[in-house]
Amino acid sequence: MKKSSCIFVSLVLPFFASFAQESIMPQPNQIVSPEAIGDSSVTFRVYAPKASEVLLIGNVNRNISQLGEDGKMHKVQFTRMFNQDGIWSVTLDSLKPDLYTYKFLIDGVETVDPRNAHVVRDVNNVSNMLFVSGGDVDNYMPRNVAHGNLVTDWYRSSFNGLERRISVYLPSGYATSGKKYPVLYLQHGMGGDETSWTELGRAVEILDNMIADGKVKPMIVVMSNGNVAREAVPGKDSHALAQPDFYLPHTADGEFEKQFPDIVKYIDGKYRTLKDKRSRAMAGLSMGGLHSLFTSANYPELFGAVGLFSAAVDPIRYDESKISEIYFDRNAKVKRQFADNAPLYYIAIGTDDFLYDSNKKFRAFLDAEKIPYIYNETDGGHEWSNWRHYLMDFLPRLFTDF
Amino acid sequence: MKKSSCIFVSLVLPFFASFAQESIMPQPNQIVSPEAIGDSSVTFRVYAPKASEVLLIGNVNRNISQLGEDGKMHKVQFTRMFNQDGIWSVTLDSLKPDLYTYKFLIDGVETVDPRNAHVVRDVNNVSNMLFVSGGDVDNYMPRNVAHGNLVTDWYRSSFNGLERRISVYLPSGYATSGKKYPVLYLQHGMGGDETSWTELGRAVEILDNMIADGKVKPMIVVMSNGNVAREAVPGKDSHALAQPDFYLPHTADGEFEKQFPDIVKYIDGKYRTLKDKRSRAMAGLSMGGLHSLFTSANYPELFGAVGLFSAAVDPIRYDESKISEIYFDRNAKVKRQFADNAPLYYIAIGTDDFLYDSNKKFRAFLDAEKIPYIYNETDGGHEWSNWRHYLMDFLPRLFTDF
Repeated sequence: MKKSSCIFVSLVLPFFASFAQESIMPQPNQIVSPEAIGDSSVTFRVYAPKASEVLLIGNVNRNISQLGEDGKMHKVQFTRMFNQDGIWSVTLDSLKPDLYTYKFLIDGVETVDPRNAHVVRDVNNVSNMLFVSGGDVDNYMPRNVAHGNLVTDWYRSSFNGLERRISVYLPSGYATSGKKYPVLYLQHGMGGDETSWTELGRAVEILDNMIADGKVKPMIVVMSNGNVAREAVPGKDSHALAQPDFYLPHTADGEFEKQFPDIVKYIDGKYRTLKDKRSRAMAGLSMGGLHSLFTSANYPELFGAVGLFSAAVDPIRYDESKISEIYFDRNAKVKRQFADNAPLYYIAIGTDDFLYDSNKKFRAFLDAEKIPYIYNETDGGHEWSNWRHYLMDFLPRLFTDF
Repeated sequence: MKKSSCIFVSLVLPFFASFAQESIMPQPNQIVSPEAIGDSSVTFRVYAPKASEVLLIGNVNRNISQLGEDGKMHKVQFTRMFNQDGIWSVTLDSLKPDLYTYKFLIDGVETVDPRNAHVVRDVNNVSNMLFVSGGDVDNYMPRNVAHGNLVTDWYRSSFNGLERRISVYLPSGYATSGKKYPVLYLQHGMGGDETSWTELGRAVEILDNMIADGKVKPMIVVMSNGNVAREAVPGKDSHALAQPDFYLPHTADGEFEKQFPDIVKYIDGKYRTLKDKRSRAMAGLSMGGLHSLFTSANYPELFGAVGLFSAAVDPIRYDESKISEIYFDRNAKVKRQFADNAPLYYIAIGTDDFLYDSNKKFRAFLDAEKIPYIYNETDGGHEWSNWRHYLMDFLPRLFTDF
């Protein structure tokens, strides 16, 4: 019943040459992993001499499918690795350019690659990073261009009077130009924080590169923490090293949207911003899409552009008792938002996204009301690979008359 | 010569599906690790049902000794963990307040704790973080105080014309005070970068807390990358996701010290700094101590205070041919440095540090020349636990007449 497909593994590293000599054991510190083989193949290796099973897990497996019992092709969740003298390895071919995450599952234990120091946290999950270069995704890595500054700032929230951490991107030239800049407010999803777009989203690199290429207008980008009852990313708030949590109180109950004008006021007070609606945009992914949709709908005077990336367009009812008036009458509020000085409205989602149907219904409402929006339907699901692309697609549309 | 083999790729299966049928089996996602037991005991746990040996490694073991065959007490490098139903655990008692690092060695494979999302990189080694609170080390964690800003900035270096990344701490109130501030230049050790003091050193939290407590004067702190031929920390430079390296070209050959005035000029040009010698300090750990010693000795007009934390006081001769005139005539240069407008000179080192003897010789020279310095001799060796304490001891001594 188990079908299999074939993947070629290259065993050409110098240290394999020593295997002929029994006295010379492989040295874990000589193992290279990951190792790029050409443009699109990567070999993964881990020294686990006593393991009975090692799997490669993570979204590096994303483009691999195999035939299932039902006669259809199914995506795989892991790739089996092969043992030779304690070194487990596998080569993935035809990896499309992207920033991938992976780790190993060694006899059931999740393990980051001991030979790859590049790790990234997604909510409470730490994985290794792997970059396969090419095309658009080269924007994810720094190039030798003029760089913006990333400022870790703090603002006072009217929610419990908390000092809250906020990431502010200032474009190259900000310090010396004397000019005022338009502002994009960019929000993370559930379980994320003010570092999600800079770490997983590579927003600083994308902005630096696309601004340098003249594809994106110089702008300030403000990435705030949507968990309004928390001050900051875990480790930088007063909860010391508490573990990151997917569900946090007051994260999707309307309190964040309600207090959002605090953030705009703080940013407009401190940085050289253009303060009119057409110079201000808000976008977010998943729950950040919810935050963007409802903040912009409840404060229609604030934002001249709205980006919904795999957005939760309906309230997230994980704590029904906490739903606030912020989420009432969505459609009426959106209609009002478009009645006067309509914003640029951008919706992007993947066909495999679990929020696809709710977005489809929301778009049906927009269509019925003849409310104009830009729609970017892609492959894939609810994943950073899409969100980075949506950001790259959205940014050039902003502030084009400056 | 290329070998190839076939790899089985299996269909999607929930990894732990089989456990669901046996309700008594532990669920990996229910394991808590690390778990604080009271003030100073911590239990570590990992689910590794097939493992034959699991060790707890990292500096959590630092204060544990055991009797050796020689009848003497020896420090241990690891603690053995005990298996019960596939869950390996051990409790460490009497952990002194500190920020520790640890991970597991499962049948020889280094593994970060799958239940602890707080990880930190030291050169090319990723470990979990564990915080045991109490006393001075509470300064390592954010408190509800006024926070400074951390700016990730870039300056143009005269070394190869590189744009180089630099971390700049601006104290709370900087944006609105209109005041000018003194500046501390704070350097990392070999294998480190412009993020070492903020990540491993907890410099932002230490500064925020000690400034809020009135123990340290508000100051700007500039943390630059001592690897002068590199632009930035791995992952943020043009080498994409190259692995971090302990030895980098031009890291300890005098080029960094030579171009250091570029950094001072950039900071003085952009930020509201006090520009006289008595308002400027330089300090660093290990190789950063070398950089501080020789930058201040070669440019005696620049720094009114110098901090040498576990410093390499002699040139690091890993590439003999590259030793520059920056490192010539150290003692004569230091004598000249003290001849006129002598700086505050601070030396701190642990008795177990491998650089203890070279520091002792350097101090013998200072003593013979009646050159005054503050000396802080501590327990321990070449480790962040000491460097954070040295920073906390050094900071209150700076800029005290402001």
